[in-house]
Amino acid sequence: MQLITYYQNEFLAFMKEHFVEREPKNLYDPIHYILNVGGKRLRPTLTMLSADIFGEDYHKALYAALAVEIFHNFSLVHDDIMDEASLRRGQPTVHTKWNLNTGILSGDTMLILAYQYFEQYEPNIFQELAKIFSKTAIEVCEGQQYDVDFEKEVQVSTDQYLKMIAYKTAVLIGAALKMGAIIAQTTEENKQQIYDFGLALGIAYQLQDDYLDTFGDVSFGKKIGGDILQNKKTLLYLKALEKGTPVQKQELYTLYTTQPKDEAEKITRVTELFVITQSHTYLREQVEIYTLKAFTILDALDVPNEKKEILKEFGKNLMNRTI
Amino acid sequence: MQLITYYQNEFLAFMKEHFVEREPKNLYDPIHYILNVGGKRLRPTLTMLSADIFGEDYHKALYAALAVEIFHNFSLVHDDIMDEASLRRGQPTVHTKWNLNTGILSGDTMLILAYQYFEQYEPNIFQELAKIFSKTAIEVCEGQQYDVDFEKEVQVSTDQYLKMIAYKTAVLIGAALKMGAIIAQTTEENKQQIYDFGLALGIAYQLQDDYLDTFGDVSFGKKIGGDILQNKKTLLYLKALEKGTPVQKQELYTLYTTQPKDEAEKITRVTELFVITQSHTYLREQVEIYTLKAFTILDALDVPNEKKEILKEFGKNLMNRTI
Repeated sequence: MQLITYYQNEFLAFMKEHFVEREPKNLYDPIHYILNVGGKRLRPTLTMLSADIFGEDYHKALYAALAVEIFHNFSLVHDDIMDEASLRRGQPTVHTKWNLNTGILSGDTMLILAYQYFEQYEPNIFQELAKIFSKTAIEVCEGQQYDVDFEKEVQVSTDQYLKMIAYKTAVLIGAALKMGAIIAQTTEENKQQIYDFGLALGIAYQLQDDYLDTFGDVSFGKKIGGDILQNKKTLLYLKALEKGTPVQKQELYTLYTTQPKDEAEKITRVTELFVITQSHTYLREQVEIYTLKAFTILDALDVPNEKKEILKEFGKNLMNRTI
Repeated sequence: MQLITYYQNEFLAFMKEHFVEREPKNLYDPIHYILNVGGKRLRPTLTMLSADIFGEDYHKALYAALAVEIFHNFSLVHDDIMDEASLRRGQPTVHTKWNLNTGILSGDTMLILAYQYFEQYEPNIFQELAKIFSKTAIEVCEGQQYDVDFEKEVQVSTDQYLKMIAYKTAVLIGAALKMGAIIAQTTEENKQQIYDFGLALGIAYQLQDDYLDTFGDVSFGKKIGGDILQNKKTLLYLKALEKGTPVQKQELYTLYTTQPKDEAEKITRVTELFVITQSHTYLREQVEIYTLKAFTILDALDVPNEKKEILKEFGKNLMNRTI
């Protein structure tokens, strides 16, 4: 993991150097603020790592990495408005610290800046980067829309849910990796495989996140049962509705649509229903399937073994929540 | 003007053909709605016209024209949220007809779609188009921010105001024309000149708009004095503050910061102050200077005379408000 830390630091240094004061301050200050609030910088790190793996100097990937990071932050700023979130990584969100208009306009500007960073590459690479970027950005917006829609819909299939989380989070992991491959000008097959690896890993990670929210180890520090209290239609809930008896379904539905007298009691009972309906086994299997899929793709990848090991370790650490 | 009408219709047909139903509906329906609400489609028409003028089949410019139009509509959707406007071209704005979240997310998607339309062009042209587009889009955001900032600032210089309106509206006119020139692969000099023509014409148009809002002919159908009642810091106001005596300045400042007893009286008195301070003469001169600048650039342009005439007629009709 030393290499990941090294890339993270290199990226942070590059970003810091890149962001100088710029007018109008009310537009650029919020951008610099949100980019400095923190985060693990995993996405830009993956772009650098991927370039390295396919035989290119990671420095060449820094601008694309910055594009990935600023796009990610654009989506956070706009999502925080939509979710009415007042805190992000423990700090006030942009629309809370400034106002709604600043949140919208700074977000828009970040999206455009991402495209501008690609201008550092020659036309063919530029177009390839912009293409995968636009496709991904559209999917992220669609994923956010599906998420909003699903809150109101009674019937959501597990396939629809998987598509939603793939779009909302996993495609950007795939795209971040693919961009490094594009910059390294590797084969089309490698580009596709590294994308597929990121996509599968991203889905596995997100599904595991859902699993841990209900069945996680309290010692991880995360509050258990948050999704249940928020009546979030995760795969656990959707599968339980699919697999449960009519009586179980009705009980679950009632628990998710009425105000609970006792929150702890609600969490306990819903968790029981997830176990009884074997929804929790299903989800654990899905996490394993997608993780296995990711590592199988990796095994087949045409790069030297020592390079492959770096990605494997990254994947393992991600799934073990140690990065 | 028959040619302009022809281009407008061709563009509308292309746009109609292009927009098919797409999932998720709650994301794409608002986009199709706002694009069909109307408007004169002058910007996309200019892209087609410019390609033609520099010797390229205008059909080749249709995707870039669509990018320009969808970007323009993106800025309207987000600006309407920021301005809390409930109507646009007589129809409900997106965030009014749907909601805030839909307004933000559909706007974001439109911005990305604009970049995707450029993918129709080969890498070198793609990069050139994306570059001028990103530069322009950033300026439009900065212009909007300056506009928001100026509302709260006591002291705004006429130069700052000119920069603001150039960024908010004129740069997109210049960029729309330049894109046609890029597609036609004309000389760098021509690309720059057609951009400068559009920029000057756009500024002249916007300044004339400010002028007509106070000194316009009522028969045009536009309400006279709207800017004054909204206390808008137009060039008329800023110049009057610059040129007026201390007493006139104080009176104008008071009129702009207190609730008027009689709206008509306020309009009359502010208009008088604009005349007394010769601010209205200054503005009329500025309109003439920028119009002249536009037509001078046009005269020097290295294209056949009959092509030049089309742009001249367009410019004249725009300034005479007949298109």
